[in-house]
Amino acid sequence: MHIMIIGAAGMIGRKLAQKIAQTSTLGGQNVRHLTLVDIVEPAPPEGFCGTTSLYAADMSREVSVVELIAVRPDVIFHLASIVSGEAEVDFDKGYRINLGGTQNLLEATRAEAENTPYRPRFIFTSSIAVFGGLMPDVISDDFRLTPQTSYGTQKAICELLLNDYSRKGIIDGIGIRLPTVCIRPGLANMAASSFFSGILREPLAGKEAVLPVDETVRHWHASPRAAVDFLIHAVTLNTALLGTRRNLNMPGLSATVGEQIDALQRIAGPKAVALIKREPNPEIKKIIEGWPQDFDAARAIELGFVGEQSFDEIIQTYIDEEFGGNWPGLG
Amino acid sequence: MHIMIIGAAGMIGRKLAQKIAQTSTLGGQNVRHLTLVDIVEPAPPEGFCGTTSLYAADMSREVSVVELIAVRPDVIFHLASIVSGEAEVDFDKGYRINLGGTQNLLEATRAEAENTPYRPRFIFTSSIAVFGGLMPDVISDDFRLTPQTSYGTQKAICELLLNDYSRKGIIDGIGIRLPTVCIRPGLANMAASSFFSGILREPLAGKEAVLPVDETVRHWHASPRAAVDFLIHAVTLNTALLGTRRNLNMPGLSATVGEQIDALQRIAGPKAVALIKREPNPEIKKIIEGWPQDFDAARAIELGFVGEQSFDEIIQTYIDEEFGGNWPGLG
Repeated sequence: MHIMIIGAAGMIGRKLAQKIAQTSTLGGQNVRHLTLVDIVEPAPPEGFCGTTSLYAADMSREVSVVELIAVRPDVIFHLASIVSGEAEVDFDKGYRINLGGTQNLLEATRAEAENTPYRPRFIFTSSIAVFGGLMPDVISDDFRLTPQTSYGTQKAICELLLNDYSRKGIIDGIGIRLPTVCIRPGLANMAASSFFSGILREPLAGKEAVLPVDETVRHWHASPRAAVDFLIHAVTLNTALLGTRRNLNMPGLSATVGEQIDALQRIAGPKAVALIKREPNPEIKKIIEGWPQDFDAARAIELGFVGEQSFDEIIQTYIDEEFGGNWPGLG
Repeated sequence: MHIMIIGAAGMIGRKLAQKIAQTSTLGGQNVRHLTLVDIVEPAPPEGFCGTTSLYAADMSREVSVVELIAVRPDVIFHLASIVSGEAEVDFDKGYRINLGGTQNLLEATRAEAENTPYRPRFIFTSSIAVFGGLMPDVISDDFRLTPQTSYGTQKAICELLLNDYSRKGIIDGIGIRLPTVCIRPGLANMAASSFFSGILREPLAGKEAVLPVDETVRHWHASPRAAVDFLIHAVTLNTALLGTRRNLNMPGLSATVGEQIDALQRIAGPKAVALIKREPNPEIKKIIEGWPQDFDAARAIELGFVGEQSFDEIIQTYIDEEFGGNWPGLG
């Protein structure tokens, strides 16, 4: 099997490549070749038994995308995206990469099939940002697309394209609406959601973290490990079960900030919790209020996708992945 | 006021231009200039007090669209579209015109505003084809986008773009989801919906018409006059009332084929009804089964859009517009 990951230098892309490399199999089939693509050349994963190709490519350049698809991967993971905040500030770039890039990929796939049959499994990372505005407390699988940002609009449009290109037999598509990924390793970023990870990650490293909202704020989370597992599960899913609706809300954990902090207290103790500084930020509060809080992801659960059950589990996953399972404590 | 109609050579476009020309005003303001655009040069309307420009232009050609928008119309009616059947057969053309054409228009508007402020009222004709598949008997304003055709997908994507470009202040957009327009004047076409008009229009002209489905089939209709009135009402609507959801299901008439025939009987008598030949066509039946049957268009009704109350009214509108109000009978 030949797997292509587009967006392989990103946090989820790296973890996905590493997970595939470790077993060198997917759904019982050997993975013989990995093609890793990003705007910068991705690093090769460790321990892979097959061969790896690494490419730096801009998805908004039609010619580059045609060349990429010419290698005819069996599975394409399309994770490449301008993040929400940047897509809002740079309107043009957001549409060029998030919509234009996806259109280029779909069109290159259509063109590739013109002479010799070709229909890859196409796994697209969408987002809960396709929802927003007036929403019920718990969002069902039947809720309408109501994006309130350019990023969410671009993801929603890609979902519609994925359905139509799948219906036409050009791709065998699955759209994975990821919850907010928590705990994100690495540095804090300028995203309004950054603090959901920051209030756990920074105290675990003995550093202060800022909490800009109330503890009652509720949000929808999944660990990086769960996100990677969703993507891998999508490779072997029987897509006939999806019918004409190929975009799925993933299972996640609905938790308040208070519940996050309680879990931190249980795992890392009061010293860690004391590192969280409350600095209310009305602007961030307002943005967060427009976000989904909870989902009933019945379809995905029935299809075998598995999320976390508690924030203790999410923190433990972070400790497993970033501290090798052994958190040193705060001295 | 300067009004541009793109798609002005089509059936609705012609009637819209004619209606504006007749009064030469819109919402109490004088219409000084009409710019009429289509893939072929549209005919000028009769009786217009202002000046008219006529253009043949391909909306998928970026350069032509930039030139068009450079005349800075106050109101843009965007009606240009490849029809459902053609978009399904010619996948590439459907996306190029229905999606690419709309994107070119929106981007040209954004570019036009770069030096001098410009934000036109942008009225887009969407379609009930954005719905399909598993649907409730009556579709509410909150129902999700579930297109089952490339045409419906393209319209749904344009709706999302219209919302986002409006949110960003580039246009002041309104999407008008038209019911099936009935009675369409002129010749029958190859659309699966053609018979809804045909079984009334042909008998009124003393000709036979084929009915390919059962009389129990229910569908959602509006007359060409109602469709034109929806578009004109959208010119002066207070868009602040739309919030972040700028696409509206229009009011219509939910009627069965049997109810259409009953109305024909009342207005044109049994001789007309006898011209309807029942020739069941399982393929058309299957297509129609995937279409919406009824809507609760509460938002649009509250905003002052008015549809028809009976099929007698729809037939009478056809007689008014096509026979000058005086149907000669069947001799």
